[in-house]
Amino acid sequence: MATRTAFTTHFQQSVTPNALRSYLAEFISTFIFVLAAAGSAVSSRKLMPDARSDPASLVAVAVANAFGLASAVYISASVSGGHVNPAVTFAKVVGCHIPIPTALFYWISQMLGSVMACLILKVVTVNQAVVAHAIAPEMTGFGASILEAVLTFGLVFTVYTARDPRHGQLVSTGPLAIGLMAGANVLAAGPFSGGSMNPAYSFGAAAISGSFKNQAVYWVGPLIGAAVAGLLYDNVVYPPLDSDASRCGGQDGPRV
Amino acid sequence: MATRTAFTTHFQQSVTPNALRSYLAEFISTFIFVLAAAGSAVSSRKLMPDARSDPASLVAVAVANAFGLASAVYISASVSGGHVNPAVTFAKVVGCHIPIPTALFYWISQMLGSVMACLILKVVTVNQAVVAHAIAPEMTGFGASILEAVLTFGLVFTVYTARDPRHGQLVSTGPLAIGLMAGANVLAAGPFSGGSMNPAYSFGAAAISGSFKNQAVYWVGPLIGAAVAGLLYDNVVYPPLDSDASRCGGQDGPRV
Amino acid sequence: MATRTAFTTHFQQSVTPNALRSYLAEFISTFIFVLAAAGSAVSSRKLMPDARSDPASLVAVAVANAFGLASAVYISASVSGGHVNPAVTFAKVVGCHIPIPTALFYWISQMLGSVMACLILKVVTVNQAVVAHAIAPEMTGFGASILEAVLTFGLVFTVYTARDPRHGQLVSTGPLAIGLMAGANVLAAGPFSGGSMNPAYSFGAAAISGSFKNQAVYWVGPLIGAAVAGLLYDNVVYPPLDSDASRCGGQDGPRV
Amino acid sequence: MATRTAFTTHFQQSVTPNALRSYLAEFISTFIFVLAAAGSAVSSRKLMPDARSDPASLVAVAVANAFGLASAVYISASVSGGHVNPAVTFAKVVGCHIPIPTALFYWISQMLGSVMACLILKVVTVNQAVVAHAIAPEMTGFGASILEAVLTFGLVFTVYTARDPRHGQLVSTGPLAIGLMAGANVLAAGPFSGGSMNPAYSFGAAAISGSFKNQAVYWVGPLIGAAVAGLLYDNVVYPPLDSDASRCGGQDGPRV
Repeated sequence: MATRTAFTTHFQQSVTPNALRSYLAEFISTFIFVLAAAGSAVSSRKLMPDARSDPASLVAVAVANAFGLASAVYISASVSGGHVNPAVTFAKVVGCHIPIPTALFYWISQMLGSVMACLILKVVTVNQAVVAHAIAPEMTGFGASILEAVLTFGLVFTVYTARDPRHGQLVSTGPLAIGLMAGANVLAAGPFSGGSMNPAYSFGAAAISGSFKNQAVYWVGPLIGAAVAGLLYDNVVYPPLDSDASRCGGQDGPRV
Repeated sequence: MATRTAFTTHFQQSVTPNALRSYLAEFISTFIFVLAAAGSAVSSRKLMPDARSDPASLVAVAVANAFGLASAVYISASVSGGHVNPAVTFAKVVGCHIPIPTALFYWISQMLGSVMACLILKVVTVNQAVVAHAIAPEMTGFGASILEAVLTFGLVFTVYTARDPRHGQLVSTGPLAIGLMAGANVLAAGPFSGGSMNPAYSFGAAAISGSFKNQAVYWVGPLIGAAVAGLLYDNVVYPPLDSDASRCGGQDGPRV
Repeated sequence: MATRTAFTTHFQQSVTPNALRSYLAEFISTFIFVLAAAGSAVSSRKLMPDARSDPASLVAVAVANAFGLASAVYISASVSGGHVNPAVTFAKVVGCHIPIPTALFYWISQMLGSVMACLILKVVTVNQAVVAHAIAPEMTGFGASILEAVLTFGLVFTVYTARDPRHGQLVSTGPLAIGLMAGANVLAAGPFSGGSMNPAYSFGAAAISGSFKNQAVYWVGPLIGAAVAGLLYDNVVYPPLDSDASRCGGQDGPRV
Repeated sequence: MATRTAFTTHFQQSVTPNALRSYLAEFISTFIFVLAAAGSAVSSRKLMPDARSDPASLVAVAVANAFGLASAVYISASVSGGHVNPAVTFAKVVGCHIPIPTALFYWISQMLGSVMACLILKVVTVNQAVVAHAIAPEMTGFGASILEAVLTFGLVFTVYTARDPRHGQLVSTGPLAIGLMAGANVLAAGPFSGGSMNPAYSFGAAAISGSFKNQAVYWVGPLIGAAVAGLLYDNVVYPPLDSDASRCGGQDGPRV
C-alpha cells in the first residue's frame, strides 16, 4: 500500500513540466553527443576505409567523444543532471537518487536521441554506413564486458564527483572532466571493444547499422561498472554527512 | 509610430560607444577564429595536398576550430556577448534578445573579420589557396544544409547555456564548452559538409578563394539550426522565470 | 621519546576512516590513470606495430595521459589530495606536508592501482603485451633520469600551484592544468624516455610486462625532480605567509 | 631629475624579494613551456625525419604548445603575471603596466629559461638537433613577420582578457584560453612561419641549434603584434573605468 502510493507519487513526479524538460534535455544532449561520436567514426572510415587500424583515426574518434560528451553534459547539467548515458541513470537508480519511473523516461529519451542521431547521419551522408561498436576478433564477449565495465566505472565515478557540490570550485569544470575521462578511455580501448561506455550510443549505432552482434556486451558491462562506481562513491569514498541509510524510501525528484 | 520610434531608439542604441566596442570585438574575435580555422585547412593542404582524405588533417582542422573558437569567444564574451558567428546573432534577433540594427552591425563586423583573415592568409602564404567549404560529391545540397543545421543547433544550444547566469559556476567554462562543441562537430562532419556552422567563415573563405559554389548551404542550414536552438532553449528547456511573452517589444541593448 | 610519540601519532592518523578513504581514492585514481595511459600505448601498438615511430601514436598516448591524469586528479582531489603519483607523495613528505606512514600507504595504494590496471589490460586484450617504459637506444640511463627529473619538476610544480588556495579562482582548473602539463611532457619526451614522470605507472607496466630494465630511471628521476619542485615552491617561489620553518615537527593529517 | 628619481625607484622596485620571485617564476615557466614546445618538435622529427610535412606532427607540436603554455601560464600567473613571453612583457611596458627595469629582468629570465630548456633537450637526446623556427621557402621575411605579428596579436589580446578581473568568473580559465589560442595559431601557421609568437622561444632554439637565420622575423613580428593588441585592449575595447590617461607616470610594481 505504502509502496503503491510511493510508486504513484513517483510517477506523478515523472510527468511534471520540470520532469518533461529533463527528458527533452536528455534527448537533445544524447543526440548531440552521439552525432559527434558516431559521426567521427563515419568520417574516419570515409577518409580511410581501414580506419579501425589507424592511430590518427583513433585520435579523431577519441577527441570527438571527449569534446562531444563534455558539451553534451554541459548543456544538460542544470536541467536533467547531465546523464547523457543510461549507465549513469542506472547508477542513480541503484543508489536511490532518482525513482524508477523517472529513470525509464530518461532511458527512453537517451535511446531515442541516439537513434535519431545515427539516423540523420545515415541519411545525410548518403552511402556511408554508421559504424556499430564491435570487439576485436581475438577477444571474448566476457573480456569485452569486463573492459567496458572497468571503463564505465571510471566514467561514472567522474560523473559522481562532478555533480557533488562538496567539491566546491571543482564543480565548474565537471562536464569537462567527464568528457576528458571518456576520451582517455576511448584511446585505451578503441581497438579492443570500441570504448562505448554508453548503452544508448551502442543501441543507436546497432539499430541503424542493423548489426546487434555483441550488443549485450555494451549493456551488461556499462551497467555493472556504473552501479559499482555509484555505490562505492556514495557508501565508501565520499559518503553523505547525514547517515540516511534507508535513502531508497525517500526520493529527490528528477533534477539530479 | 511607436514602431518607428522603437526603430530610431534601436538605431541610436546601435551607435553608442559601447555598441561600437561590441562591433570591434566581434570583428577581432571572428578574425582570430577564422585565421585559425581557415589557416589550419591551408596548412594541412600544404603538408598533404590530399588533406581532405587524411584523418590527421581532420584532427588538425577540428582542433584548430575548437581551440580557436574557444579563445575567440573568450575574448569577446564580456564585450559583445561572444557571438563570433552570424548564426548566433540571428538566433538572438529571432528570440528578441538584440534589436535588428545592432544585429546588422554585428553581421557586418563578423563578415569583415572573416574576409580580412582569409585575405591575410592568402597574402602571407604566397601561393597557397584558401580552402572554401565544400560538400562531398555524393551529397545533395539539401542533405548538407540539414547536416549544417543540425550541427549548428548543437553549437547554438551550447552558446545559450554558456551565457545563461542561471547555470552558476558553469559559466566560467562557457567559452571552452562552445569551442569543444565546434571541434566535435567538425570531426563528425568534416569530410561531408566541412562543418562550418558559421556563415561568416564560409563567406570569407568563399570570397577570397573565389568559389561561391553551394554558399547557400552555409547560410540556410546554420541560420535555421541556430534559430531553432534559441527558440527551444528560451521557450521550452530553460524558460525565463518571469513570463515576459511579448519580449520583442522591449530591448536589452547590444551587450548580450 | 617525543619522536616515538610523534611516530605513533602519525601512524594512528594513518588508519582513521578518512585516511583509509584517501588510500582507496589513490588506488582508484591511479588505476584509472594507468588504465588510460598504458591502454593507449597498447592500443597504438595494436593499430600500428611500429607505434613507437609514428607521430599519430605519440599524439594518442599524450592525449590519453593528459585527459586520463586530469580526470584521475579531479576525482581524488578532495579526498586524498589527488597525488596519483608516488613522486608527488614523495615531495609532500620531503616538504613535511604529510607524515611518512601516510605516505607509505599512499605509495602502496598507487602501486597496487597501477599493477591492477596493467593486469586487467593484459587479461582483457588477450595477446597484447603491456608496454613498459623504455629509453631510446642512443640515450644513457643517466640522461634519461635527468630528462624524467626535469619533466617531473614541471608536473609537480603544477601540482603545488593547483592545490594552493592562495591562487583563488585558478584552483577550479587545477586538475586540468596538471593533466595538460603531463600531456605536453609526453609529447616532448615520448620517443626518448617515454615521459613517465610516475614511478607507480612505470612499476605496474614493468611488473606485468616482465621487463624491469632501466626501472631505476623511472624512480630516481621523478623522485628527485618532484622533491626539487616542492622545495622550490614552498621555500622560494611561493613561501607560506607564516614562517613555520620547523614545519616537519607538526603534521596536517592525510587530507592534503 | 623627477625622471631619474622615478628610474631609481623603478630599479629599487625591481630587486625586492617579490620581484626576484617574479623573475624566477618567469624563468621556470618559460623553461617548462619551451621544453614542451621545442621537445615536441625534436620528438616529431625523431619519429619522422620529414616531420615538417606531416599533419600528425603538426598536431603533436600544436598540442604541446597549447598544453605546455596553458600550464606554464598557470603556474606563474599569481607570481609574475604569467607572461612566459617577451612579447607580452613588451606590451605591458608600452601600456605602462610595468616599469622598464622590471621588464628587462623579465626578458633576461625568459631568455635564460628558453636557452636552458633547449640546452637540456640537446644534451639528454644525444644526437637530436633542436629545431629552430624557420619560414617556408616561398615566403618572404616580411610576410612571415606580418603572420607572426597577427598571430601574436591574437595571443596577447587573449592574455589581456585573461588577466582582467572585470571578466569575473572567466578569469579562472584564463591560462587555458591563452594556451588554446597558441595551439590554434600553431595549427594555422606551423608550415609557414612555425607559429612561434615568442621571441624567447625562437632565441633559445636558435642559440642552441646555431642557426639565427631570419631571427629578426621572430622579434619584430611578435613585438609589434603584442604592442598593438595591448594598446587596442587598454584604450579602445576595454578601457579602464577611471581615465588615467597619463598612466606612464605611475607604476604598479612587478606583480602584473
